[in-house]
Amino acid sequence: MTRFELWAPRAQRVELVAGGRRVRLRRASGGWFRSELPLEGELDYAFSVDGAEPLPDPRSRWQPHGVFAASRTLPLEPFAWSDAGFRAEALPRAVFYELHVGTFTPEGTFAAAETRLEHLVSLGVTHLELMPVAAFSGERGWGYDGVAPFAPHPAYGSPDDLRRLVQACHSRGLAVVFDVVHNHVGPEGCFFARLGPYFSERHATLWGPALNFDGPESDEVRRFFIDSALVWLREYHGDGLRLDAVHAIHDESPLHFLEELRIEVERLSLAEGRPLFLIAESDANDPRLVSARRDGGYGLDAMWNDDFHHALHVFLTGEHEGYYRDFCGCTDLVEALARGFVYAGRYSGWRKRRHGRADPRPRGSQLVGFAQNHDQIGNRPRGDRLSASLSPARTLVAAGIALTAPFIPLLFQGEEWGARTPFPFFCDYADAALRDAVRTARGDALDPCARETFLAAKLDWSELDDPQHQRVLAWHRELIALRRRTRALCAGALLESDVFCSEKESWLVARRGPYLIAAHIGAAPATLPVGSIAQTRILIACGAGHRLTAAGLELAPDSFALIGPL
Amino acid sequence: MTRFELWAPRAQRVELVAGGRRVRLRRASGGWFRSELPLEGELDYAFSVDGAEPLPDPRSRWQPHGVFAASRTLPLEPFAWSDAGFRAEALPRAVFYELHVGTFTPEGTFAAAETRLEHLVSLGVTHLELMPVAAFSGERGWGYDGVAPFAPHPAYGSPDDLRRLVQACHSRGLAVVFDVVHNHVGPEGCFFARLGPYFSERHATLWGPALNFDGPESDEVRRFFIDSALVWLREYHGDGLRLDAVHAIHDESPLHFLEELRIEVERLSLAEGRPLFLIAESDANDPRLVSARRDGGYGLDAMWNDDFHHALHVFLTGEHEGYYRDFCGCTDLVEALARGFVYAGRYSGWRKRRHGRADPRPRGSQLVGFAQNHDQIGNRPRGDRLSASLSPARTLVAAGIALTAPFIPLLFQGEEWGARTPFPFFCDYADAALRDAVRTARGDALDPCARETFLAAKLDWSELDDPQHQRVLAWHRELIALRRRTRALCAGALLESDVFCSEKESWLVARRGPYLIAAHIGAAPATLPVGSIAQTRILIACGAGHRLTAAGLELAPDSFALIGPL
Repeated sequence: MTRFELWAPRAQRVELVAGGRRVRLRRASGGWFRSELPLEGELDYAFSVDGAEPLPDPRSRWQPHGVFAASRTLPLEPFAWSDAGFRAEALPRAVFYELHVGTFTPEGTFAAAETRLEHLVSLGVTHLELMPVAAFSGERGWGYDGVAPFAPHPAYGSPDDLRRLVQACHSRGLAVVFDVVHNHVGPEGCFFARLGPYFSERHATLWGPALNFDGPESDEVRRFFIDSALVWLREYHGDGLRLDAVHAIHDESPLHFLEELRIEVERLSLAEGRPLFLIAESDANDPRLVSARRDGGYGLDAMWNDDFHHALHVFLTGEHEGYYRDFCGCTDLVEALARGFVYAGRYSGWRKRRHGRADPRPRGSQLVGFAQNHDQIGNRPRGDRLSASLSPARTLVAAGIALTAPFIPLLFQGEEWGARTPFPFFCDYADAALRDAVRTARGDALDPCARETFLAAKLDWSELDDPQHQRVLAWHRELIALRRRTRALCAGALLESDVFCSEKESWLVARRGPYLIAAHIGAAPATLPVGSIAQTRILIACGAGHRLTAAGLELAPDSFALIGPL
Repeated sequence: MTRFELWAPRAQRVELVAGGRRVRLRRASGGWFRSELPLEGELDYAFSVDGAEPLPDPRSRWQPHGVFAASRTLPLEPFAWSDAGFRAEALPRAVFYELHVGTFTPEGTFAAAETRLEHLVSLGVTHLELMPVAAFSGERGWGYDGVAPFAPHPAYGSPDDLRRLVQACHSRGLAVVFDVVHNHVGPEGCFFARLGPYFSERHATLWGPALNFDGPESDEVRRFFIDSALVWLREYHGDGLRLDAVHAIHDESPLHFLEELRIEVERLSLAEGRPLFLIAESDANDPRLVSARRDGGYGLDAMWNDDFHHALHVFLTGEHEGYYRDFCGCTDLVEALARGFVYAGRYSGWRKRRHGRADPRPRGSQLVGFAQNHDQIGNRPRGDRLSASLSPARTLVAAGIALTAPFIPLLFQGEEWGARTPFPFFCDYADAALRDAVRTARGDALDPCARETFLAAKLDWSELDDPQHQRVLAWHRELIALRRRTRALCAGALLESDVFCSEKESWLVARRGPYLIAAHIGAAPATLPVGSIAQTRILIACGAGHRLTAAGLELAPDSFALIGPL
């Protein structure tokens, strides 16, 4: 027997359409229609509401022919999990790796990603963060326009292919993080929104109507998205979730959607006896996200720290366009290293208002820090990586700072070898008008709708045969290994006042426990004051010259060094 | 010298227009124009921006000829305050009295209200809560459509008339609470919105665009409304503010407008060395409003408890229309007495979603409870009071419950003598289309735009000559006096489980410390179980019969009794 059910609060009649037959579902309470039917195994099906054309199941676990076609029930034989003993590395000791399934390998599938896991293990990262894998319209896309939030994207493989990937990660000690989107749904292929009040009548987002998390009939809409989030943890054994752009989740009810999600994930964690974490991406610099629930927060585990990225980016590149105008030289980078947010109530010229909040201040282990990510690369008109603007030497400095900062570090696929492939925005909408609208709205150098743009984003693994790339990879491995074996270098408390810099000479020094981190990007060699050098030595360094003398740490331009006890 | 200043971030040129002259103001930073000019005393003035027609000062302290006309500077001679020693009664021991200046007296002025203060003193209330006195369009109105938030409504009198009223209150031991509106501005006469981005581009309210508290250039808009709130405390010696409909204050920034207001009022309180409180009206049942700031709350002192009102109203009247459908009999009244909110996460059929939040639970002294208020009377089609639907005996029961409940009690003007005058909605817009829109939208029995409707709402003080009204007044005085002299009956912790009721016989019993409160509205006499009656007696009662026997407390229909120690 298989249970088929649909929430359709406006419907008079719901029929299951499968195998050329129609079976009417029984009306249950609360707008639900539900029946147990003697149908088993992999069966294509859809629902017809009040006699209209059949639609896929909103809670479909599998859309083998895409989001416009029928849903499929799961196979009789459940997946044979064998990861019972796996425990994810704790967040303060984690190193994240952000991965887009479609471009990580030439094949662009879950199965192909599995063949590259040894690379990640030898790199030393602990968490694979998959950009959204929920099904979306078309073959290719970043994934943030998902419309079937319970089903993996069919171009990447089947549900069991994804399970095999997670199992393979767990067997190698790698945790898996799923990126989920609760702020909007994709602009096409979203059929469930026809069935009930999924969209808010009061709130909107940049990407379309907001989800109805606080209006009439919002209880079931909240339940729908919370259940969809739990699927990636329960049915795919994910270890945590990355919550996309939570500032665009509009909910004015006293129990915010994010807090309710936290409660439900906590419940699952207790039931399964393993920790499960939630990490938010947010544009709000709001400590409430990671404050404990007993302190009036939402109790999330961590959030992305864009301020650190922007300050680091401006320090390294000198760019000042767009939101980068809010950041300057090494002063703001020092502020980020010392306090997490640069904007914690300060006036932002870009936003034309005060931004962020100072108290309570998140700990470093509650912030994710990165020199690059999919957005910061992909939302540039050419989708060019940091390595396209920086000298090879300065690229290494970027890694040095990001991988020794007090935040949970995150690398974007290929960053570890200084990949030359860009990561432009790409999509594959069916509707021509929508394609034109996206082209116009973005104005990117590469056509986001062209297949070539997607192909250009695929990692070129042959770059790893090049000694130059090998050196970059070795540097990342070395940094990660040092961080992983050094407690004082893990994510933790922020540095407070023990960071200083010279804006004029373009260097900074930051203390982390007994270690000093030093970076210099000025045009001339500089001597950085690092206090007494007795009992200390350079543990790791990159750049054309570095020497510890009684006068201080001499660094050539574009150098990074980490000093520690003998 | 007088400082004239205007925030006009889009303006090229700002001129002061006064006494037939134009003087150009100097451009300052941040979109401000500012000059000190050798003009003093009461002077009519306006501002011309880029040569356009002169507009009143958004921060005008006085609009003697209404909101469409010129502003006036304050007199040279400052008001002579003599209330330095006054301290408002603490909220747990307070009894509030809500008053509408225009209808409280035949004259409808601050000065006339002053002549009725002895009535309030002898009634025993401690706080006068003035419905909004900020200037609005037209002569008459409830006041929630204010457009000059720094200036008193000229139909009520001058700024110094209002100061004299406050001073007279303070000299009699009465505190004064100002009702302020930060969720929208009135639909006509609002000129300041032409001068800058006062309205949100993202949020809306039922009453028009929301105020821009989180978008670009919102810092000055927040400052404007916070400064306007402080004016009633600093320049008029108010003891606290009632914040209208805060659920419609839309602010997604990490420092909510209400928390910032709390911080600023706290700062003023420290500077002036007297406590200043903030009480919110909210439709959200969100404990965060009154949670301490260190616990992630906004730190307000209290909020209105509509759930208590609705439960009490349904218990007394049996009405089930509109939002009353969410409440039933005495069970929900018991829930309100025991826990504050009836809806603390429970599903609401009226709202079609779960409503409210259970934790942290506000204390009784953080909730304002009432049997009636301006909205609950005035938003009925006929604006009829509870006494219009209830028998005189049951009206007394209503007062008994409201004035012995664990919340801060609030009476609406005239309630204390069972006034027969209605309090319908009334307004006085200049624009005919707007008048028609209001008539249509409200569909009230009385024309909201007719002067007669306003006149009908005026209290009829001659009712006090009627012995029936005198009895009602005496009962209120007796209840207030008992509450005021009895610590256990003040607002405080909620009752927890020590409340019980009979839905079938329509009675309830609630314990408050050593006291038992009993109310019965069933059709037949009932015997209420009140435990051992040794060492106890009926301290106060109303109704046709009440007797304490070994079997319990015998109450006739429509009776109320309070039992306490001998």
